[in-house]
Amino acid sequence: MPKKAYVRAHTNIALIKYWGKRDETDFLPMNSSLSMTLDKLYTDTMVVFDEALPKDSFYLNGEKQGEKETQKISNFLDLFREEKNTAMRARVESINHVPTAAGLASSASAFAALAGAANLALGLDLDPQRLSTFARRGSGSATRSIYGGFVEWDMGTCSDDSFAVPVDDAGWDIGIVIVAVNQKAKEVSSRIGMKRTVETSPFYPAWVESAKRDILDIKAAIAAKDFIRLGEITEANGMKMHGTMLGAEPPFSYWEPDSIVAIKTAQALRKQGIACYVTMDAGPNVKVLCRLSQAETIKEALLEHFTEDKLIITKPGKGIRELTAAERAVYNWND
Amino acid sequence: MPKKAYVRAHTNIALIKYWGKRDETDFLPMNSSLSMTLDKLYTDTMVVFDEALPKDSFYLNGEKQGEKETQKISNFLDLFREEKNTAMRARVESINHVPTAAGLASSASAFAALAGAANLALGLDLDPQRLSTFARRGSGSATRSIYGGFVEWDMGTCSDDSFAVPVDDAGWDIGIVIVAVNQKAKEVSSRIGMKRTVETSPFYPAWVESAKRDILDIKAAIAAKDFIRLGEITEANGMKMHGTMLGAEPPFSYWEPDSIVAIKTAQALRKQGIACYVTMDAGPNVKVLCRLSQAETIKEALLEHFTEDKLIITKPGKGIRELTAAERAVYNWND
Repeated sequence: MPKKAYVRAHTNIALIKYWGKRDETDFLPMNSSLSMTLDKLYTDTMVVFDEALPKDSFYLNGEKQGEKETQKISNFLDLFREEKNTAMRARVESINHVPTAAGLASSASAFAALAGAANLALGLDLDPQRLSTFARRGSGSATRSIYGGFVEWDMGTCSDDSFAVPVDDAGWDIGIVIVAVNQKAKEVSSRIGMKRTVETSPFYPAWVESAKRDILDIKAAIAAKDFIRLGEITEANGMKMHGTMLGAEPPFSYWEPDSIVAIKTAQALRKQGIACYVTMDAGPNVKVLCRLSQAETIKEALLEHFTEDKLIITKPGKGIRELTAAERAVYNWND
Repeated sequence: MPKKAYVRAHTNIALIKYWGKRDETDFLPMNSSLSMTLDKLYTDTMVVFDEALPKDSFYLNGEKQGEKETQKISNFLDLFREEKNTAMRARVESINHVPTAAGLASSASAFAALAGAANLALGLDLDPQRLSTFARRGSGSATRSIYGGFVEWDMGTCSDDSFAVPVDDAGWDIGIVIVAVNQKAKEVSSRIGMKRTVETSPFYPAWVESAKRDILDIKAAIAAKDFIRLGEITEANGMKMHGTMLGAEPPFSYWEPDSIVAIKTAQALRKQGIACYVTMDAGPNVKVLCRLSQAETIKEALLEHFTEDKLIITKPGKGIRELTAAERAVYNWND
């Protein structure tokens, strides 16, 4: 009998960044990281394992994907098949609600959703921590998307204990304004950039050490619900990550002119008393951490430089969950 | 009898940066630096020491300067008065040929010219190395403007041996295209930025160590007249300096949107086979190190983004020297 499941996972933005692997095979990071799961950006995924299927297939937003994309999904599903001791092939259908305009990678929500769906479909009953170690093998940032709110990815000591732990549900007055600077292909991929930084930047060891302190500091700020401190640590940590790249050989930067426009806009607002802080991943897009109640004000200031379609406001999101029948019906996903 | 002298000094651009003092009183740097003296940007200075003068006075571009500026000049002249064992006051007249549009600090050429003129006027007969230690007390970068071409500022062990040494006359096919992004007052002054970086950036120790290697590498590149290697080291060192600032607490950056436009223009030209490399000081302006024979081509590409008045081409400049009678006559500076 075919085994089906339908799962939603939200993407996340790292406030303390994951930047560098200590193990390329097992995707083990050089430092622990901490993120906020994002409500408005998520992936819905259906998976069906069926003895009758001759091979894996993968549909994204209704379109059948090519060999390379499908192979990546197959490799990921192998982890679950191995755990279940089955050879059943699967059909995977994913719908991304991570707008292209967000300029955010959807790999976090994609692999978290697929991990959740595979777990359910095969009846593996993995606990969330274990599931998080599986998600990690698809994409580092997917590790954290298992949970909602603020989530720590504990670097661990080996593949089995490098997983996410929930820190706080972020149920305070917190939001993110995403500034999508552009979606052009990056000249240096995250994977290459990470590797180059680890191997050549003289700043890298200091980055790892200071990220360890940042994790402790930001958890203390979260425990105290100290938004200002949370923001300061977030902005400093993100800038520091970008600083490591300027130290690499050859140096590189993901910043675009408009990245600086967004950063300066946020910093000007801060001078006017609006608590907001920027962070950037391995790309030109800027995310402004703010109080949700002030997100519209911040968006308005950004509208002086960016068109509406480049600006997305989101609040903290929740962890992975099964889709309801009504949600499945939207995609014509029926039992 | 009054003692007069007239001296010209050129400003310089550091290829290996001076970023951080180990001694705030004596202006001793944390690392040796290496610069290229710039032909087109210079300061002409007249100084006259006279028993009859009641106090020091300072004229810049024909305008009498205020108390604060004059005090700085007085303090600097005290070093020479002490050396000569005299109390004579002086009148200083300076004409800056460092266009405001260059967005380059004129302090290097200003203090080198004043040092040279005071030395001559008082008949101190300081040798260039010693003179360089005097210039250093006015402005760190002035240390290097005593000489022409490529110049190393040896960090030394104390005030007496922290001076510049000529490395190469840069008499090859070398030029700089200066891109003046803007001349707005900086939010973080160089002095404050330097200090904050030294005190708070976890990257700072690695910066100092790697700058030491960069000095050796760039001197090897200069000795081999290897322009490509010279450029690569220059760009990497400058980016690294800016990386240290992103590591500071709070982090800061001198980059403006147009800085990135200029950097990207240069990097695009490089992909097209034009060897050019960027460097930036503690400000938003970009300097493109190139072959002088290709400077016009680079300027043309930059003209797609910048107006002509923002772009200055210069070749390597010479060390300090006395003005000729004809040069003095231009300013009505007569014996």
